[in-house]
Amino acid sequence: MPIEIPDVVIDRLPVYARALALLDRNGRAVVSSQELGAQLGVTPAQIRKDLSYFGRFGKQGRGYSVPRLLEELRQILGLDREWTMVLVGVGQLGRAILAYGGFAPQGFRIIGAFDAEPATIGQQVNGARVQPASELEASLRTRPADIGIVATPAAQAQQVIDRLVGCGVKAILNYAPIAAHVPPHVHIKDIDPVLSLQSMTFYLKSQLTAPVK
Amino acid sequence: MPIEIPDVVIDRLPVYARALALLDRNGRAVVSSQELGAQLGVTPAQIRKDLSYFGRFGKQGRGYSVPRLLEELRQILGLDREWTMVLVGVGQLGRAILAYGGFAPQGFRIIGAFDAEPATIGQQVNGARVQPASELEASLRTRPADIGIVATPAAQAQQVIDRLVGCGVKAILNYAPIAAHVPPHVHIKDIDPVLSLQSMTFYLKSQLTAPVK
Repeated sequence: MPIEIPDVVIDRLPVYARALALLDRNGRAVVSSQELGAQLGVTPAQIRKDLSYFGRFGKQGRGYSVPRLLEELRQILGLDREWTMVLVGVGQLGRAILAYGGFAPQGFRIIGAFDAEPATIGQQVNGARVQPASELEASLRTRPADIGIVATPAAQAQQVIDRLVGCGVKAILNYAPIAAHVPPHVHIKDIDPVLSLQSMTFYLKSQLTAPVK
Repeated sequence: MPIEIPDVVIDRLPVYARALALLDRNGRAVVSSQELGAQLGVTPAQIRKDLSYFGRFGKQGRGYSVPRLLEELRQILGLDREWTMVLVGVGQLGRAILAYGGFAPQGFRIIGAFDAEPATIGQQVNGARVQPASELEASLRTRPADIGIVATPAAQAQQVIDRLVGCGVKAILNYAPIAAHVPPHVHIKDIDPVLSLQSMTFYLKSQLTAPVK
């Protein structure tokens, strides 16, 4: 890409794509930046600015073609292909991840699940046989994965991430509550509900001390 | 607060607090913005600017007092008290949320769990008895909650959020894959792993088509 696109813009594109996919399923042909913005709690100007990084989409005053913009966003984000993932950590959270129905329809396929617990290894969880964590490297050599999902306890997470990165995994979805380190060429997103809660209590607390008029 | 503080700044404060808590547990008395920044992948200037919204903390060239800055951040974020939460949706994901050990030590306590499935109602899940979703309003009248956690299927989520908001819940942690609507005085954070994956594939795809030199 010739222009540096801010990460926050990239983070918003999947939200736009999700809203457009819903409009598309409902048979909508055209949507304005006003309507899309109102649906998503984003200003129309923000939507137009975000999309302008990738060229011209809508015509002034005529709105966006829903299927065309959706297709473009899917290409931009790489959602027009399948991505493979391995899961490390098959405790309660790992089981919920394996059972989660939202990955596969979006092209994200879990091709392996690993755990270090002898009692867990060999179990069938939602169609996946849990493999020994010690076999992670051998398995990824035979069958590489694009993305690693880390659902281990905090104490093991950095080491697991290092091993995944060592195997050539280029993106990490980290559920462990640590600020993990990855080399610059590797991408990482944290899923940490506590951090999300803690940024909301700032506002709750402010409302308590200074009630809304 | 007299000055408008950007949401992205508020979102970073819990990350700083988490890193400081770890340093504090390890007995560290002082930390520089350089060291904290290196740990978190944030520039030292960003950390100083974020903290400057809340007054003066460190002395130039002497770093921050770890326990003092941690205590200040905990007060700013409202982490020095307990917050009560109710969970709606006790499927596989809801069970993982109830089993998650990370909430209580941070002061977030789940005081009720609700589901609409007759087979699920009455079950004991990690010490919580699942109540009928129809009793949500009555339960919150007797015992109000600060935060609602929504782990229902997508089709039910908006309606559940409306009911929680109607009961006076001021913050929603939403695990359902929808762009939910809440009134302006209510805060919402989405936990959607697919959106996180989709913003990483943008970079993966770019690396595939234009490999890093």
